[in-house]
Amino acid sequence: MESVVQVSGTVISRPPGQENPKMPTGEIEIKVKTAKLLNSCKKLPFEIKDFVKKTEALRLRYRYLDLRGVQMQYNLRLRSQMVMKMREYLCNLHGFVDIETPTLFKRTPGGAKEFVIPSREPGKFYSLPQSPQQFKQLLMVGGLDRYFQVARCYRDEGSRPDRQPEFTQIDIEMSFVEQTGIQSLIEGLLQYSWPSDKDPVVVPFPSMTFAEALASYGTDKPDTRFGMKIVDISDMFRNTKVGFLQDALSKPQGTIKAICIPEGEKYLKRKDIESIRKFAADHFNQEVLPIFLKTNNNWNSPVAKFIMEEQGLGLIRLLETQEEDVVLLTAGEHKKACSLLGKLRLECADLLEARGVVLRDPALFSFLWVVDFPLFFPKEENPEELEAAHHPFTAPHPSDVHLLYTEPQKVRSQHYDLVLNGSEIGGGSIRIHDAELQHYILATVLKEDVKLLSHLLQALDYGAPPHGGIAIGLDRLMCLVTGAPSIRDVIAFPKSFQGHDLMSNAPDSIPPEELKPYHIQVSWPTDSKTEKSSLNHPCHPES
Amino acid sequence: MESVVQVSGTVISRPPGQENPKMPTGEIEIKVKTAKLLNSCKKLPFEIKDFVKKTEALRLRYRYLDLRGVQMQYNLRLRSQMVMKMREYLCNLHGFVDIETPTLFKRTPGGAKEFVIPSREPGKFYSLPQSPQQFKQLLMVGGLDRYFQVARCYRDEGSRPDRQPEFTQIDIEMSFVEQTGIQSLIEGLLQYSWPSDKDPVVVPFPSMTFAEALASYGTDKPDTRFGMKIVDISDMFRNTKVGFLQDALSKPQGTIKAICIPEGEKYLKRKDIESIRKFAADHFNQEVLPIFLKTNNNWNSPVAKFIMEEQGLGLIRLLETQEEDVVLLTAGEHKKACSLLGKLRLECADLLEARGVVLRDPALFSFLWVVDFPLFFPKEENPEELEAAHHPFTAPHPSDVHLLYTEPQKVRSQHYDLVLNGSEIGGGSIRIHDAELQHYILATVLKEDVKLLSHLLQALDYGAPPHGGIAIGLDRLMCLVTGAPSIRDVIAFPKSFQGHDLMSNAPDSIPPEELKPYHIQVSWPTDSKTEKSSLNHPCHPES
Repeated sequence: MESVVQVSGTVISRPPGQENPKMPTGEIEIKVKTAKLLNSCKKLPFEIKDFVKKTEALRLRYRYLDLRGVQMQYNLRLRSQMVMKMREYLCNLHGFVDIETPTLFKRTPGGAKEFVIPSREPGKFYSLPQSPQQFKQLLMVGGLDRYFQVARCYRDEGSRPDRQPEFTQIDIEMSFVEQTGIQSLIEGLLQYSWPSDKDPVVVPFPSMTFAEALASYGTDKPDTRFGMKIVDISDMFRNTKVGFLQDALSKPQGTIKAICIPEGEKYLKRKDIESIRKFAADHFNQEVLPIFLKTNNNWNSPVAKFIMEEQGLGLIRLLETQEEDVVLLTAGEHKKACSLLGKLRLECADLLEARGVVLRDPALFSFLWVVDFPLFFPKEENPEELEAAHHPFTAPHPSDVHLLYTEPQKVRSQHYDLVLNGSEIGGGSIRIHDAELQHYILATVLKEDVKLLSHLLQALDYGAPPHGGIAIGLDRLMCLVTGAPSIRDVIAFPKSFQGHDLMSNAPDSIPPEELKPYHIQVSWPTDSKTEKSSLNHPCHPES
Repeated sequence: MESVVQVSGTVISRPPGQENPKMPTGEIEIKVKTAKLLNSCKKLPFEIKDFVKKTEALRLRYRYLDLRGVQMQYNLRLRSQMVMKMREYLCNLHGFVDIETPTLFKRTPGGAKEFVIPSREPGKFYSLPQSPQQFKQLLMVGGLDRYFQVARCYRDEGSRPDRQPEFTQIDIEMSFVEQTGIQSLIEGLLQYSWPSDKDPVVVPFPSMTFAEALASYGTDKPDTRFGMKIVDISDMFRNTKVGFLQDALSKPQGTIKAICIPEGEKYLKRKDIESIRKFAADHFNQEVLPIFLKTNNNWNSPVAKFIMEEQGLGLIRLLETQEEDVVLLTAGEHKKACSLLGKLRLECADLLEARGVVLRDPALFSFLWVVDFPLFFPKEENPEELEAAHHPFTAPHPSDVHLLYTEPQKVRSQHYDLVLNGSEIGGGSIRIHDAELQHYILATVLKEDVKLLSHLLQALDYGAPPHGGIAIGLDRLMCLVTGAPSIRDVIAFPKSFQGHDLMSNAPDSIPPEELKPYHIQVSWPTDSKTEKSSLNHPCHPES
């Protein structure tokens, strides 16, 4: 098994009855004249067959064997083909120039997630950039008006499932372009490069504002393959006598929201409802009220019964409910209530599908543009201060520019996200091309160290054209296209979620003399003995 | 100048006599209806015109302005187009799969030139690989039998002119292939992707053994655009009475070699000859004897006169000299004599060309394969020990395998270099696919730490197919194709030769708290005050 042999002979048809239509070569065989063993295979750690279950740790440790499997071969070959089609579209059909930008760069403001690389100058470090953002804008200043790159990017987020410390994006920037220009370019790009064994991509993609996405789906990346949208039912309850609803509505931004689970009465079990309520209480400190439309079925909930009696017809009309549906109702601050119901919507969809309901067609690819994001968000640790919602180079929405100087938190941006089946696969924006405005946002609004970006600010002053762009996350996109369970299945040699290469055992310890030229030394933790000795062990298997 | 304006109006012909055939838009102009200033340009640090001389430091500092120049636009756009054609050839015409391999890896044996990246685990480091060598071999084991990648590679060589800390190679690997298979693939690749405004590439490329290249050109990367080859004239002097020649021939590997400088009498000045002799004495500790064929012209050199009288006709016959030529003769150990004359050959070619002789046609691209390299070289610091001539995965020449165990220094390899106009632009080899042989070479011959490569050795044991590949240095290739004076002219944002980005001032200092998660601290040199204070200055301009 799995040894390499060289055979010469004559290709003949298989004897009648011995054909195997499941094999690509199942109709023929070779009448062997000579055979030579080129390399033998020793005992395999697992069988190279797709139906043989193995842990991911074992697969990653023997990645070179795992790659021989049908699924990994398909994933990597399809990835290569799709990227090639994208290049043809951009380079040959639309005059883009493929330009490589440096990965040995300097840290960016707030770049806490950037890997550092010591240089031979004491105390000086390169940083691995999270994206070619600055370089692509500088290329626009440099008159390379249509740039793209299949760019390696780096982000050190510690241990995170389904994140990789290095990842790839299709990085694009254009001069003299507006939001719609980038959007139709990307729609064409995906349509052109889409695998021929899938249903063709329909363009243009629908578009939704950030506010609408939050209100109807409780997230900025709605999965639009199915309904169960969030409905605001506040108006129906203006005169309610139920205390906690009155209470919620009396507060600022107070709302009552609901989603309808189709046939929930049939598919959701009592313990599902209980875990839903527990989730809402634990993660959102929110009450969720399940309402069964057959009123007699509202398990010990007098409130639900009362609501059905009082607002039943209104609920049925607004939520378009059927008899066996279940309504989940919550009351509270708009954003919080939407976020919670958005999570429950996905949770319930999973539950229904686990019980055999087909909510999301596996052959369906549902693209969506989300637009009109806020330009800034309040900082989590200090809501008085603002941070860039995406990055500090995003241009404000033209209708909101005047608010920058008075109510910056209200300014919408010219940022756009591309969402596929509920995953964000890309994002971009029209950029600021005016040095003064860029300086104002960096220094006054965001209070960043402007010195770190002086080269970019300076460049904008030398006749920078208006420009904008986008980046598509290639790993995530390929994961969705191939239906792979993890982005590790569309990357040849991925890291484990702890950032390890389980095959070669990277990262590894390094002799101190090899650190000397870089003027650094290791700061061992105080219980350094245990830490040090563990370095000599191979890294632990990870799941 | 250089501001960005938006103009609307009617395109009309220029009035007769006002056409400018030198401009692409020189026949038309716009009758303006409206004009709007989109972004103004402040005072430029230099004019964006190719004939305006500026230092490279200034160009790099304002790279975004330098990129607007005609030459940089041409270089970067041509690079993009050529790479696109290469991808079409490999991916679409020859079934190669474009696979991205990690750049966060572990150090390789003897990898002293690898940048290190601290991880969040104390004392553990990633390394930036010098090439995807290990990964591409592992892909062959993984059944991805035709791999290519336009791969970013990293090498920390400190300050070196015309080297970049990050560079790009066209990286290729195939299973079930022999040397000639890789060679004809690359010939086809270059022919297919060659710019249409150049003379077409003629294939197949000529081939030369390493031994022949050394003997005739004194180097492993001969510039075959012109003659002036090194000739061994030892036999002519077996019975010479000249002492230092007798002396040289009596030693092991002792030879007498010469090159002929065409019309040297006319073009070489006395001070040229003097500086040639000084160079030979200083760098090779060798004597060079210039012989002017018009005997009466041998400036005060009785030895040269004597040699001309004794061996004149033989010299003229062997070197095919004409009356006005000058012969440079040296005596000594074969390799040393060849290396010296190889250097002088190039030096004299430059001198002749500086004086108006056309030796090397600027439109000529002279490709050459150099083959049959030694598998090992003696280590410079300790000639008793061997090191891999290229890398430890190179397969030995089939006819020399038996010598591995007795006289490894005599084993030739299956390595091949691709040379263009005297520059090495690529190199590759058939690899070892036998785990036992690979282990023997690593552990016994090279005395490397086998543990660091255990994953690769293990992979070879699982039915690895025979395989081989090559890497083409894209920056160097583009530099030769565009005729650029430096590889920095074919890279959008290059580093200075001290490894600095003069535009953004990378590498940069980093606040100590950002180093904390990586468990490293800076070891300041003992005179740390002066060093530290210099960190606050912008980096010095470099030429």
